[in-house]
Amino acid sequence: MIAEIISIGDELITGQTLNSNASWLAGNLDKTGVATRQITIVSDDKEEIERALSEAERRADLILITGGLGPTKDDNTRDVLCTFFNSRLIESQVVSDDIKAFFAKRGLEVTETNRKQSLVPENCSILRNKNGTAPGLWFERKNKIFIAMPGVPFELKPMVKDHVIPFLKEKITGNFIIHRTILTHGIGESFLADKLNNWEKEFPSNIKLAYLPSPGLVKLQLSGTGENQQQIKEDVGTLINKLKKIIPGYIFGENHDTMQSIVGKLLKEKHATLSIAESCTGGMISHLVTSVSGASQYFAGSIIAYDNNIKINQLNVDKSLIEKYGAVSKQVAESMAAEIKKSFNTSYAIATTGIAGPEGGTDEKPVGLVWIAVAANDHLISKKFLFGDNRERNMIIASTAALNMLRKVLSGKQRRR
Amino acid sequence: MIAEIISIGDELITGQTLNSNASWLAGNLDKTGVATRQITIVSDDKEEIERALSEAERRADLILITGGLGPTKDDNTRDVLCTFFNSRLIESQVVSDDIKAFFAKRGLEVTETNRKQSLVPENCSILRNKNGTAPGLWFERKNKIFIAMPGVPFELKPMVKDHVIPFLKEKITGNFIIHRTILTHGIGESFLADKLNNWEKEFPSNIKLAYLPSPGLVKLQLSGTGENQQQIKEDVGTLINKLKKIIPGYIFGENHDTMQSIVGKLLKEKHATLSIAESCTGGMISHLVTSVSGASQYFAGSIIAYDNNIKINQLNVDKSLIEKYGAVSKQVAESMAAEIKKSFNTSYAIATTGIAGPEGGTDEKPVGLVWIAVAANDHLISKKFLFGDNRERNMIIASTAALNMLRKVLSGKQRRR
Repeated sequence: MIAEIISIGDELITGQTLNSNASWLAGNLDKTGVATRQITIVSDDKEEIERALSEAERRADLILITGGLGPTKDDNTRDVLCTFFNSRLIESQVVSDDIKAFFAKRGLEVTETNRKQSLVPENCSILRNKNGTAPGLWFERKNKIFIAMPGVPFELKPMVKDHVIPFLKEKITGNFIIHRTILTHGIGESFLADKLNNWEKEFPSNIKLAYLPSPGLVKLQLSGTGENQQQIKEDVGTLINKLKKIIPGYIFGENHDTMQSIVGKLLKEKHATLSIAESCTGGMISHLVTSVSGASQYFAGSIIAYDNNIKINQLNVDKSLIEKYGAVSKQVAESMAAEIKKSFNTSYAIATTGIAGPEGGTDEKPVGLVWIAVAANDHLISKKFLFGDNRERNMIIASTAALNMLRKVLSGKQRRR
Repeated sequence: MIAEIISIGDELITGQTLNSNASWLAGNLDKTGVATRQITIVSDDKEEIERALSEAERRADLILITGGLGPTKDDNTRDVLCTFFNSRLIESQVVSDDIKAFFAKRGLEVTETNRKQSLVPENCSILRNKNGTAPGLWFERKNKIFIAMPGVPFELKPMVKDHVIPFLKEKITGNFIIHRTILTHGIGESFLADKLNNWEKEFPSNIKLAYLPSPGLVKLQLSGTGENQQQIKEDVGTLINKLKKIIPGYIFGENHDTMQSIVGKLLKEKHATLSIAESCTGGMISHLVTSVSGASQYFAGSIIAYDNNIKINQLNVDKSLIEKYGAVSKQVAESMAAEIKKSFNTSYAIATTGIAGPEGGTDEKPVGLVWIAVAANDHLISKKFLFGDNRERNMIIASTAALNMLRKVLSGKQRRR
């Protein structure tokens, strides 16, 4: 079964909004063993939607459509589908009742605009919407399936998980896709490729390798296809075991791991706690750490010491250290880590101080210079980094590097001094 | 001139990576007055790339291609283009020199893998890459232009800004697209639509309206097209002036404003400073505030008080308040704001305390309950919110709501008590 995704929206085609729905959908199809052949974005225009539907119908068996089902005048998908499938709009009692219940729960009356959403094409099935008012519309024609769903992610996702995926799981037999992704940190894409040249030569024709670089990380994705699921799993596993022997120092996780989820897991295993003193990263490390559900088990809290007075008065960094070495220095980073560990009474602490940019750099201390320190009960380490001149990128790379330093300490891979 | 964007990558079609390049590219084309007709994602497969190129050639005048130009074996775009344009690979001296210089600057030798990137199709022009090793490739055939560029955003963006956009600006005359986006907070899409029903009826046929909802916000995008740029600007402006009279309380900004950039601007205007005490938002508000370049002018710092002991020992919240009312309460939120304002010595302070979920809720205090407080020199306000049960969404909506409360205080729109 070959799938395509059509995303509809002027906000997508004009670059106002990122198409995260298609990415999420493709990821879920992939996990289910359904390959996506193409993802297409077109505007809310009726002719463009109709053209995209016709073209996709020629190429794919399953066409998933998102967006354009809302209650406002710029939403055309339902009407185009109605024409495309030679149907007419009728009122659905189920949808009408769902809309009433949706608003009643929130103490609101059903507006005229929302009442119109209970009109659906006569020849489609309905996917009920738990989190909104627009139902999903499911059409079948000549063994091809078209499913139109709302573009709001919190409405789309339960619909896919509750209806689309279970249906596909039942339908799919025979061909399997297995993905495994290895996450690396601290080495660039081309240097990694040079190290892995011989390893890549061992790949059988049914397993592919992709290098996926992002700020601070390179992901190595292995994708195997075939009819014998167990055999593909084993073959991919064998390659990964060899990889782990080639670049052990750069690998930090697999698949949907993140640096913060790995650090969280290690802290939980040790029944340890963490505090953070952030300057140049401005709260991003804390945000990453607390984005992991259950972080309250190990994360005590942070001080974001953006202003030097906060470093002195709240973090108890010695004023003379800042005067002597500057706020962006080994001495201040180490003092920040040691002081927050003490005052927050945690087993570990991270600290960052640097120049995120685009302003504030000097010849001696350019934009992108960051000092990161990690404090533990029996040691205190620090490291100097020189990133680029992009503020957003510096913040994310510095945050990832800081968490990686802590990860190495937690997993005993960091030499003590 | 009609453009299309083709994004190439297994990581994109399998949903491992968000296609932020296409969105960024479409946004830049749009600003230049070039409409994007379709955005297409296909895999790194040679046949799929070739098919996407052929189809796009039929529909568009300008085809922008990203991805698949890297140094590793999974990168096929250059070879497919070479075949598609009946060409052969030759070594480019310019590219070869650029690659040498790129690595020399970093104190590294040119590897064999990277040396191969100086081979380019004979019949294309080269776009030099400032931030990487793969050059952009520019082909022309029968009045159609194909430009292939690397998929790494930090390499792609300067190439587009330095070469593609200036070329298009020169080429484009005649038809204009004007966008203006109004940002609203605190009202749902369908309720907004009901309020704007009559206003929408006034739209001339060359101006379109789109409702773009995201967590905590609804953006209203007006897009006008036509030959008289000044006239479209005026017509869009007139509609927006009317809109501002209909929903003044919900509008907080325009176009590329964000809640954090608006708050930053207001603080700068008042020469005021800000500190933040975050519990349930875990650093996200600080992260948003410091993502704005120049935030050090007004942002002093934060305490992320995830653990109640940090609220008591570091923020000086009275322990009895937590025992009596619970950590998630009006009293604790107000105390957090007042205390951090005092100890960080700032003009304003924000505090959040709540249950982000998915665990930790009770009947009385369910997941999604958040108290937000704002402290100023002469007043202290707080507000209770009830969001949903999604952790990530709760954090972003709570952060936006907190910044919006501060914005209203800063702009004098909040009643004092």
